[in-house]
Amino acid sequence: MSRPVEFQVLHRDPASLARRGRLSTPHGPVETPAFMPVGTQATVKGLTPDQLRATGTSMLLANTYHLALRPGEEVVAQLGGLHRFMGWDGPILTDSGGFQVFSLAARSKITEAGVAFRSHIDGRLLELSPESAVRIQEALGADVAMCFDECPALPASKETIASAVGRTVRWARRCKDAHTRSDQALFGIVQGGSHADLRGECAEALVALDFDGYAVGGVSVGESREQVREALRVTTPWLPEDRPRYLMGVGRPQDILDAVATGIDMFDCVLPTRNGRNATCLTGSGQVKLRNAAHRLDPRPIEEGCDCFACQSFSRAYVRHLFMAKEMLGPILASIHNVAYLHRLTRQIREAITEERFVQFRLEVLEALGP
Amino acid sequence: MSRPVEFQVLHRDPASLARRGRLSTPHGPVETPAFMPVGTQATVKGLTPDQLRATGTSMLLANTYHLALRPGEEVVAQLGGLHRFMGWDGPILTDSGGFQVFSLAARSKITEAGVAFRSHIDGRLLELSPESAVRIQEALGADVAMCFDECPALPASKETIASAVGRTVRWARRCKDAHTRSDQALFGIVQGGSHADLRGECAEALVALDFDGYAVGGVSVGESREQVREALRVTTPWLPEDRPRYLMGVGRPQDILDAVATGIDMFDCVLPTRNGRNATCLTGSGQVKLRNAAHRLDPRPIEEGCDCFACQSFSRAYVRHLFMAKEMLGPILASIHNVAYLHRLTRQIREAITEERFVQFRLEVLEALGP
Repeated sequence: MSRPVEFQVLHRDPASLARRGRLSTPHGPVETPAFMPVGTQATVKGLTPDQLRATGTSMLLANTYHLALRPGEEVVAQLGGLHRFMGWDGPILTDSGGFQVFSLAARSKITEAGVAFRSHIDGRLLELSPESAVRIQEALGADVAMCFDECPALPASKETIASAVGRTVRWARRCKDAHTRSDQALFGIVQGGSHADLRGECAEALVALDFDGYAVGGVSVGESREQVREALRVTTPWLPEDRPRYLMGVGRPQDILDAVATGIDMFDCVLPTRNGRNATCLTGSGQVKLRNAAHRLDPRPIEEGCDCFACQSFSRAYVRHLFMAKEMLGPILASIHNVAYLHRLTRQIREAITEERFVQFRLEVLEALGP
Repeated sequence: MSRPVEFQVLHRDPASLARRGRLSTPHGPVETPAFMPVGTQATVKGLTPDQLRATGTSMLLANTYHLALRPGEEVVAQLGGLHRFMGWDGPILTDSGGFQVFSLAARSKITEAGVAFRSHIDGRLLELSPESAVRIQEALGADVAMCFDECPALPASKETIASAVGRTVRWARRCKDAHTRSDQALFGIVQGGSHADLRGECAEALVALDFDGYAVGGVSVGESREQVREALRVTTPWLPEDRPRYLMGVGRPQDILDAVATGIDMFDCVLPTRNGRNATCLTGSGQVKLRNAAHRLDPRPIEEGCDCFACQSFSRAYVRHLFMAKEMLGPILASIHNVAYLHRLTRQIREAITEERFVQFRLEVLEALGP
């Protein structure tokens, strides 16, 4: 049986669980491990599709919650779907809205049916359920859709997390039943916090439902590196070898290196664009704060040796000036660099896996990044 | 004697004073009539140099006042000059700071020596004089520098304007004496309001000083179309045929058409980028307000038939969504379109002059633009 998104493992690192693979989607291939920039509102903030492609982006993520609220999935559908709407002809993944409903929306009420909440934009009363999350994602038309899951606010008791796991599995079944598009993959999301038994229970139940891929949920921006490693340690062993594995919301270079070592293939995170808008740049030797007065006359690019558009064209002194003068081009250039940096990191990871030197590569990069 | 910027009239319209020409600068040629987008702080807001070039921009303007305040001309000079600093290898014109000192700065005090004022950014006490305005512009290193002039706030009595004309001429002489860069042109600025005698007096005195080009000052954003026409009517007859003529701060399509008919060759204006950031787009049939609910599902580009990047790639519905969602890409795309629109207009004007049908072309465009 052919799947809408096929995954192929091309090479396994002999000294870790790292693997190099290829995701074949209706909008082209994605070499993995891969980083997906976040285009929350159908735009990766400040970047045109051309600029995004030039950073090395092959697949991006868009947020169902935000797009359902504004402009509304029916608008996107009527304009030809998300790819055409935003002028991006490469692969797209949409999340289910679950995470945002629990973190952004006001006064959420959760029942077995779904979640009732108020829009963070205008206070409108809305509902999201497994069925509607799938229906909205089918209208948006991404290459990969995600199951609607329950994301308990952490820290939480084991009882709360166990209850969320139960519901996440029941909702996953309903998502699978509701899903009809044959040109769109559907991934399950494993919850369970740092509890090996709950993660295992959740993963087994989802694997029995035979999804096109599996995500590790419940780990996101702001967690410590140890928390991320712990969640992975207790989860990835349960995920099938022949399906893509996606760690949601994680994009720190250190976390990516750790996660790849446990067999993760896909990542998304707002980090490169959010940091970029805040004048903080990712480089192989750690973060560079462009507002720092030290860069006032600094003729060097953001990162020496970087082949991104920002580094090929401008000095730190110029980009610093743009930030000091509150010019849009500052956030744009810093975002371009940061996204390009993460794509370069994953490209180097893929090469290291193929050449069976990933473990050494990981240690070298971690050392250069510093604390 | 060879000039740093040579001007050549290529064709004259037989039925008006319109002319097609070419400005040859150290950074390449500019076909005239030409529109120059404004890069106030060494960036045309939101656009990369590539995007700017793709709109059809050959020459741009940067503001001496803003750059002297931030990052400081010594920073720009140390980073290799304005072209290298901002990554723009095409021609650049800098204004003298005169207009901003009179309109933006706080508590300006004018004496024969120059203007003392407080920075609008941090209240610092600063001075600008003919000599320092030239010195700063030489440090910035644009292809064309402008004389430091006195711009009286309008409306003003004829006496006030006459006094400003006298000072503008004396300052122009000091600018000329202070100017040393042989790879940079210096243009004089004609003041005199709507008084034919004062404009004539000012122009004659400046022409006697033999500048590389002449600007019509004292006309800017916010003036009525009649006021612009009146200032031109009393000024352009005094300007030498063999030098470029530049109408400062004007960029409404109607004004450009009127001004070309009186023999103006160059324009600059913040209009296309400022309007663009405000979701107002220029088109051949008048302005399009993208926030209008009528565009919610509008699959058309901003302007049908436009070959700019924004129109080739996106629907009005998408650009409207970007504005409603406060996404940076909205202002970027609308600015790209607006700048491209003005370049297309001036290109069509040049073609119409060559084909000796400018008068008819002007009437057709004015009619299509509507009131």
